[in-house]
Order: sequence, then C-alpha cells, then structure tokens
Amino acid sequence: MSTERQAMVRSWTTNADAWTAVVRDGLIPSRRAGTDAAILAAVRACGPRTVLDVGCGEGWLLRALAADGITVTGTDVSPELVRAAAAAGTPDVHAASYGDLLHAPALARGPFDVVVCNFALLDDDVQTPLAAMRARTAEHGALLVQTVHPWAAHGDGAYRSGWRTETFDSFGRSFAESMPWYYRTMSSWLAEITRANLRLVHIDEPLHPETGRPLSLLLHCTIA
Amino acid sequence: MSTERQAMVRSWTTNADAWTAVVRDGLIPSRRAGTDAAILAAVRACGPRTVLDVGCGEGWLLRALAADGITVTGTDVSPELVRAAAAAGTPDVHAASYGDLLHAPALARGPFDVVVCNFALLDDDVQTPLAAMRARTAEHGALLVQTVHPWAAHGDGAYRSGWRTETFDSFGRSFAESMPWYYRTMSSWLAEITRANLRLVHIDEPLHPETGRPLSLLLHCTIA
Repeated sequence: MSTERQAMVRSWTTNADAWTAVVRDGLIPSRRAGTDAAILAAVRACGPRTVLDVGCGEGWLLRALAADGITVTGTDVSPELVRAAAAAGTPDVHAASYGDLLHAPALARGPFDVVVCNFALLDDDVQTPLAAMRARTAEHGALLVQTVHPWAAHGDGAYRSGWRTETFDSFGRSFAESMPWYYRTMSSWLAEITRANLRLVHIDEPLHPETGRPLSLLLHCTIA
Repeated sequence: MSTERQAMVRSWTTNADAWTAVVRDGLIPSRRAGTDAAILAAVRACGPRTVLDVGCGEGWLLRALAADGITVTGTDVSPELVRAAAAAGTPDVHAASYGDLLHAPALARGPFDVVVCNFALLDDDVQTPLAAMRARTAEHGALLVQTVHPWAAHGDGAYRSGWRTETFDSFGRSFAESMPWYYRTMSSWLAEITRANLRLVHIDEPLHPETGRPLSLLLHCTIA
C-alpha cells in the first residue's frame, strides 16, 4: 500500500469524531450548498428499491434514503464511522475496505438497484472500488459517483492528476490529521470508467447558487 | 434561423480573408500551442484511409492529412473558405451548411474511416451537424470533435451554456465582424453526444505547454 493510501485510510479513523460532527452539524459549505441535494436527487431519480452506499461514512445518505422507504446497505473502511452509522439507526452497515469488498463477494452482496459512492473515491486506484461496485450493481441498475469537480479543484496548479492534501481548514472544526487524496482530471475519470467496463450515461455538475461555479462532478454510469 | 446563427454564418464569409490569413500565418496562439497538433495526432491514431473534415475552413488539416497519403474530403458553409481550400490544393471540398449535409446524403457521401470537426461546432444546434457526421462515419470508424474547453473558456461568468461573442482581438489581425458562438458546459457536451446516438470513447485535454491549463476538449466518439 502506498504511503499516501496508508495516510488517507488512517486519517478516516483519526478524524472519525471530527468528521461525524462536521457532517451532522452541516459544517461543510459545499455539501450545504448543493452536493448533498445533488446526490440525493440523483439516487431518487433512479427510483431504486435497494441502494448500496460504498464509503458511507457516518451514514447521513443511508438515513435519508431509508426515510424514503428504500432498503439501504452501507460499507466504510473506518470501523469508527461504521459504528457511528449503526448507532444512528442503519443496521445493515459493514466495515470493509474496497479490497475487502472486491475479494469477498458475499459481503453486502446485492445486487442493488443503485450503487452510490459519494466523495469516497479518493485513492489513485479507483479500479478496485469500481470493480467491487460494478459486481454489486443490478443488470439494469445505476452506479453513481459524486466527486470533486476537476475544474473547480485544480486551483492555480497545472491541470494534471496527482496526489493533493486536504487540511480540512475550511470546515470550521479541528481535524487531527490532514488527508492525502488523489486529484483527477476529467479525461482521467472517463478513462477509468471505460477501463472499469462501465458506460457513462450522463454527468451532472451542480452549481453553487451564489458563485455559479461547479460544486462537484456527478457521474451516472451503467454496466457497459 | 436564429439571429445569432445568421450572424455567425455571415461572419465566416465577411471574415474569410482575415481567417485564412491568421490560420496560414500561425497567428492563433492556442493552435500553435497545441490544438493543431492534438487533432492531427487524434486522426492519425485512428489510422484512417479516408477522412471527412466538416467545417474545414481554408483546409490546413486536409492538406496535412493528404500529405500522409490519406484520401481527404472537406465541407464548409463558406464558399470563400471552400475556394481558398481548393486553391491551396484540395480538390474534393464542398460548400455546404450542416443542414445541406443532413438533407443531401449523396453530398460527400462516404462512409469515411474518420469524420472530424475541428472548432466548427459553434451553433446552439449541434444535433444537425452530429447527425450529418454520424451518417457519414464507417461502421467501425471514429467521429472526432475538437472544441473550446468548457473549463478554460467560461471566464468569470456562471458555468452555464449560452451564446458568447468572439471578437478575435487576440489574433493580431483585424476582423471585420465579431462572431457569436454557443458556449457549452461539459455536461451539455455529453448530453448532446448521447442524444446524437454516439458513444464517447475517451476525451483528450491537450495542455498549454507553459500554463499547464487545458487548450481544448477533444471528444473521441464511435457510433453507439
């Protein structure tokens, strides 16, 4: 496992309490501005009976979908976040890395009408999670990924995929550890989707209601 | 025909001489910086025997591909630019609007191994040209579109599709008329491609060698 990946996975455990608090207190500006609403709308538009949320964190999306009457299942690499999700009322939630999911097909088996991954593809290897998600998607189901918008996030640097560091400074609460994450260009996302034998049906680019700039990239895929 | 479309088409005739001169003198910074090389490389990577260039202008791409031994055909809405292309050594080049192409299947009939459109989808209606191009693409052929990069071009305004105005001020030569053109977001491009019954295989985002920012968006499609 790369140094960056180790640090990333470790940060989810170290920061579990801080993360749970900022999500529940609505302290992440982009989520409040539209990305929570965007992923909810995208899932609901599929009209699913069953949803798997891979990288579910403390479980807010599972709870919102369960309130719609949808049968929900979640997984997350952090046992602390999985405990937080279970304690908040979602029984079917499992601590599992993407590698665990890929190599243990019986875990959160499905297939699910929608498999969703909301801001949780942060590694340079997205083939492992995409393959694990694809294997759990129903034949005519959808695989939805919301992620950092390639254009909003690259800043003043060159437009090139590579590791970056999230300090969480804008979240208004102290995080013990910064988190490495892998920035991807649009061409890189499309290449990864094609390589994973998925078909990109459309994308959404939810906009910030005030700045008019994209808040995120939402990839709507089917099994190719 | 909308006011913007009329003004756009008219500008190609009014500006034909100035346009021919800036292309031939290499006065368009982004083209020199990489977009000419990018479209040439993309076409060559397909290894075509035959190529149709829709919106060929004064014909530089046709000449470059003919020099490779490829059989080339061109079309452009401007009779003046078509004359310039023919005079520069490309015999099989035709004055035709996108509507003409769509409604006259015998014109530049093909099918072609590659159908290319280099910075020539500037209208709010891209379904007409995409349908005309699709009808001329060989079964296992490719349809290549190079266009303005949605993230490089939107400026400080909101990220929203709509009409803009090109003044040609950066081209270092005077153009008699500015040109309306329709700016598209990334999601809009993908939606149009899907609607045209095409499949996006991959995208290229050639970068400026100094700034590292995207110079263009190059869409590589096949018949869905």
